[in-house]
Amino acid sequence: MELISGVWESLKAVRDRAPLVHNITNYVVMNNTANALLAVGASPAMVHAREEVADFTAIAQALVVNIGTLSPEWVEGMKLAVATARRVGVPWVLDPVGAGATRYRTTTAGELARQGPAVIRGNASEVLAVAGAAGFTRGVDSTRSSEESLEVARELATSLGTVVAITGRTDYITDGSRVLAVDNGHALMARVTGMGCTASALVAAFLAVEPDAVLAATHALVVLGLAGELAAERSQGPGSLQLHLLDVLYTLDEATVRARARVR
Amino acid sequence: MELISGVWESLKAVRDRAPLVHNITNYVVMNNTANALLAVGASPAMVHAREEVADFTAIAQALVVNIGTLSPEWVEGMKLAVATARRVGVPWVLDPVGAGATRYRTTTAGELARQGPAVIRGNASEVLAVAGAAGFTRGVDSTRSSEESLEVARELATSLGTVVAITGRTDYITDGSRVLAVDNGHALMARVTGMGCTASALVAAFLAVEPDAVLAATHALVVLGLAGELAAERSQGPGSLQLHLLDVLYTLDEATVRARARVR
Amino acid sequence: MELISGVWESLKAVRDRAPLVHNITNYVVMNNTANALLAVGASPAMVHAREEVADFTAIAQALVVNIGTLSPEWVEGMKLAVATARRVGVPWVLDPVGAGATRYRTTTAGELARQGPAVIRGNASEVLAVAGAAGFTRGVDSTRSSEESLEVARELATSLGTVVAITGRTDYITDGSRVLAVDNGHALMARVTGMGCTASALVAAFLAVEPDAVLAATHALVVLGLAGELAAERSQGPGSLQLHLLDVLYTLDEATVRARARVR
Repeated sequence: MELISGVWESLKAVRDRAPLVHNITNYVVMNNTANALLAVGASPAMVHAREEVADFTAIAQALVVNIGTLSPEWVEGMKLAVATARRVGVPWVLDPVGAGATRYRTTTAGELARQGPAVIRGNASEVLAVAGAAGFTRGVDSTRSSEESLEVARELATSLGTVVAITGRTDYITDGSRVLAVDNGHALMARVTGMGCTASALVAAFLAVEPDAVLAATHALVVLGLAGELAAERSQGPGSLQLHLLDVLYTLDEATVRARARVR
Repeated sequence: MELISGVWESLKAVRDRAPLVHNITNYVVMNNTANALLAVGASPAMVHAREEVADFTAIAQALVVNIGTLSPEWVEGMKLAVATARRVGVPWVLDPVGAGATRYRTTTAGELARQGPAVIRGNASEVLAVAGAAGFTRGVDSTRSSEESLEVARELATSLGTVVAITGRTDYITDGSRVLAVDNGHALMARVTGMGCTASALVAAFLAVEPDAVLAATHALVVLGLAGELAAERSQGPGSLQLHLLDVLYTLDEATVRARARVR
Repeated sequence: MELISGVWESLKAVRDRAPLVHNITNYVVMNNTANALLAVGASPAMVHAREEVADFTAIAQALVVNIGTLSPEWVEGMKLAVATARRVGVPWVLDPVGAGATRYRTTTAGELARQGPAVIRGNASEVLAVAGAAGFTRGVDSTRSSEESLEVARELATSLGTVVAITGRTDYITDGSRVLAVDNGHALMARVTGMGCTASALVAAFLAVEPDAVLAATHALVVLGLAGELAAERSQGPGSLQLHLLDVLYTLDEATVRARARVR
């Protein structure tokens, strides 16, 4: 099957090309995100200051904008980076962490969503909030199922001309017309902070090597979900899951990817 | 024994209700804190900006204010969150990290301590500094024993109408009249950064389900100390301790809690 | 051999004296850095605000200035800390993370380099950028070999009156006249974020106990490289490497240090 074959080829391309991924992300997950990008073969950098953020985006192969611990100075850096990304053609991913929880967060996520991200990756509640279709997000947890919000995601993707990836028990990826579903993953992953943020960062790394954003997002979510499954099989809890996840991302081989990728 | 039974019941209540714990904490430990809260069953969020911090406190079940890497902008966010917590009745924990080390830190800790925290959790030197009884704290390490500062803690608790928890080899929890002591814990825990910050965050999670702040703090410190002991038994050093601690927090069962909680 | 003996003695002195190491470092690595310093026996603290940074440097035994996620407010804190370090005689280490990648970063690194650091620790590209000899650094990865930049490092060390440590497959440490080379280390270490930042922090801890900055830097890099080698032998990937590295730093004994230190 072409698509499943594509997962391995995208992963191999990330490993071969080591794309430089520029992250403007939250304090909680910076370390995890950098380590996950390194484990998968990419080259991460975290740069946010107004004084240099645009210069850095211009030399990157992909950009992540994650509003997890946003503040006005950081949002200013995000907007400068996004403007450069648009100008020089660097694909970027928006992670609207906690959109819906406060007015400031929802408004900022909405403004960024209209600036041309290649992919918006969030849980169901965050995607609904970005779409203006939901009022309340309880922290960064999903309180809606990904299925419920799929229709909203399709409309959002169509109206913004972007790809929306809703992650949850099943992940859905859509550009408004195509819809792909990924069934890889494990429940224990939700007990490790920043797993969604890691997903967004891997999507960015894959966008650097796969120009079709539906495929890039799908491949990245298969790789993370599969790594999480394999890691969970050898874990006693969320502490060991984190360790094994990085090891598996680093060692994942073609046979395993082909045998276990679950894309519909 | 009623109290020991209470440890398990509090832990079970955290797991069942998954309280949303709002953390305004330091950069060093955000990741650990979030993971410890997730492992114990709570729902963590890190939000600090003036633009949204009060809105977020209003939807939380507990708040942590930790001054580890303070700056004026963050202190402003802390004060806005605390004002909301008081207004809407959200219990909050003050962690006066490094109080006594610099004038700025000591002054800020003192100001916050007078704003009605349900619990102040620190090591002996920090508690002494908050009480204005000590001049010098060497970084974030305790240079006084918890026993030496217990009397000061009792006076501080009485005068502020709060609960003070001094953590060390033995942890003491007091509201000025009652004094409880927790003997769980392991020396290797002091070799992992942010263990005190994790303690404060767990106290907040337990406050969300146990309104008696002496009991909430005691139960949380038993759970963390016990998890640290069990983790240390299977660890070769501070790296493996961190991993096992999260696994144990996630899997800790009733029989183990009843058999090994050591509260006086 | 005198020097190899010195590695163990420096490590033992760090463990015995537990020097307070003041870090002004980047968000990505704060947790790793603190944990590595604790594992090796030092006492870490992260303090950056203008309101207290000078007060804190004055009570520290060593200072680290790391520009990984710099911004104007943080650079102001760095300069205040450095001024105090010079005045009271606290040795400090400059880690010019990503120098060469943007003009702001290169300029800031250059300004700090002229303020009298005891040691500048970077990869080859960063050292070249600080020296004004290179234009482009690709993120925080080294794109030049350490050998190529050794001559530039010698000139930089001589002209600034400092010690320059270039880390890579082989680490070189020079004050302009002496040149030492460390062959410890393992390729997998490059797949864990912040390993260079950890190196800089350990150099600071060793400077607190060994006044000869060439020896302090060399001993610290041997200890980290050796710990990385031993950790890699029992690791399946970068996740387990991180865990084992902290365990090995904590347990490293004299016999192992004497048998495996590789200094030329």
